[in-house]
Amino acid sequence: MATIIDGKLTAATIKAEIAARVAEMVDLGKRRPHLAAILVGHDGGSETYVANKVKACEECGFTSTLVRFEDTCTQDELMEQIAKFNADPDVDGFIVQLPLPRHLDEQAVIEAIDPRKDVDGFHPINVGRMSIGLPCFVSATPAGILELLDRYQIPTSGKRCVVLGRSNIVGKPMAMLMIQKRQPGDSTVTVCHSHTQGIKEICREADIIIAALGQPGFVTADMVKPGATVIDVGTTRVEDSTRARGWRLCGDVDFKAVEPIAGAITPVPGGVGPMTICSLMINTLKAATGEIYPRN
Amino acid sequence: MATIIDGKLTAATIKAEIAARVAEMVDLGKRRPHLAAILVGHDGGSETYVANKVKACEECGFTSTLVRFEDTCTQDELMEQIAKFNADPDVDGFIVQLPLPRHLDEQAVIEAIDPRKDVDGFHPINVGRMSIGLPCFVSATPAGILELLDRYQIPTSGKRCVVLGRSNIVGKPMAMLMIQKRQPGDSTVTVCHSHTQGIKEICREADIIIAALGQPGFVTADMVKPGATVIDVGTTRVEDSTRARGWRLCGDVDFKAVEPIAGAITPVPGGVGPMTICSLMINTLKAATGEIYPRN
Repeated sequence: MATIIDGKLTAATIKAEIAARVAEMVDLGKRRPHLAAILVGHDGGSETYVANKVKACEECGFTSTLVRFEDTCTQDELMEQIAKFNADPDVDGFIVQLPLPRHLDEQAVIEAIDPRKDVDGFHPINVGRMSIGLPCFVSATPAGILELLDRYQIPTSGKRCVVLGRSNIVGKPMAMLMIQKRQPGDSTVTVCHSHTQGIKEICREADIIIAALGQPGFVTADMVKPGATVIDVGTTRVEDSTRARGWRLCGDVDFKAVEPIAGAITPVPGGVGPMTICSLMINTLKAATGEIYPRN
Repeated sequence: MATIIDGKLTAATIKAEIAARVAEMVDLGKRRPHLAAILVGHDGGSETYVANKVKACEECGFTSTLVRFEDTCTQDELMEQIAKFNADPDVDGFIVQLPLPRHLDEQAVIEAIDPRKDVDGFHPINVGRMSIGLPCFVSATPAGILELLDRYQIPTSGKRCVVLGRSNIVGKPMAMLMIQKRQPGDSTVTVCHSHTQGIKEICREADIIIAALGQPGFVTADMVKPGATVIDVGTTRVEDSTRARGWRLCGDVDFKAVEPIAGAITPVPGGVGPMTICSLMINTLKAATGEIYPRN
């Protein structure tokens, strides 16, 4: 039976650690870390994510601000708000909840955020610094996975790690982090994607599989080496008439079949998901303390 | 017998293509592209590289400027010169020849260069944009290798590509380029390094091996699948008393043993090396035409 990597519990532990540090900061007369968020429109998923972020801020003792725009908001209005947050010394970090409505230029928005306040780690400067191995804000999902590997003491040095998926927010940064000269890291990393041939055989050689394809149940038992660590980043909503809301979250891994073979595995939900918001809190704390970029 | 991938010939062809474009620009009354270089000290290797860059500028019809500093130069003096080039509308792109003497902060120098003039592609913004898949200056050696794969029509989509080495200037960007959704690219990439176990077996599965470890003769015949493409980035100077200068360049691949097995292979010298300077010329032309970053 595999070790179940409990992201929910780990996230709760980390948030309690952060809250303790914030209490110390407040005792020393310092301001609480402040995370701001911009939400455009009323997409159901985005509403949930942002509500969870606000809740996590409360748990950590952070100040949080939410600025809402309607679907009809213009690029200029959005850019103006970003400029305000960039200039506001009371805001340590902020995010613009993605995806944005189609008429808005997402990349321009990402690049308008001051890299020193870019706690989502999406700005090219942070992406580049991560690749080079310099201090930076690492995007939340890959950072959360590193934290889980670290806290569950999964050996990574010299291990074969297969990353399934090459998205800008998970696959590419995850691969880049796992090849860095540090712990967790120092892995021999292979990135697989839609063009990959022989993906089953490649997975079977992996000591660590990180599945971020967004294809429910893609990783089956015959793809997993006995004892391997399996990290499931998938969060596809699939119809489920037995649930009141009509859907459930489905990971990229066939959990029931893979769990008996794996050495350690993350469930969905309750694995990587809770860690993602947790990483955002860690980044916001680091923004407030200036440990990545010196405060002006 | 393998196809010999002739970097010297390809570089000459590309430089002629660039020269033709520059001639057109001049005919239209436009200014010639202008590459500037800063050289600190008198390191033999650096002197040679910079001299070759100046020569390549001549071949391409570019204007070139070389600013020299003594070994004793201060960080401030260097930063002042960088600021001058950043502000000079007549300079399209410039490089600071690395490595710098130890008392100078190399990373600060790299980050001081305006990313729009960073034709070496070392600035974190260019590294990050490359990872994300946005237009950017790609560092010269990986860009040169892509150009060779392209011009020799080496299939890359869905192919297994093994990158040996994880340096910031070759291994990491090379891996990132080969996983991008484009041609050449779309490969299934594995990055190997000093911590990798079973490197011979991993290499044997590769359709494309890109060796950038700096270990002379590391890739031996038993590591190469028949028909594989082998790209040798190594340029280690090894003693050779039969040469007047006392040394010769040695690649990471045992060329004599591997060539009969490989489908295509780059020699050392005359493979990747000449392409590196050629990529710098391509980047400078792109800086001049504003096709990556709009001109102010």
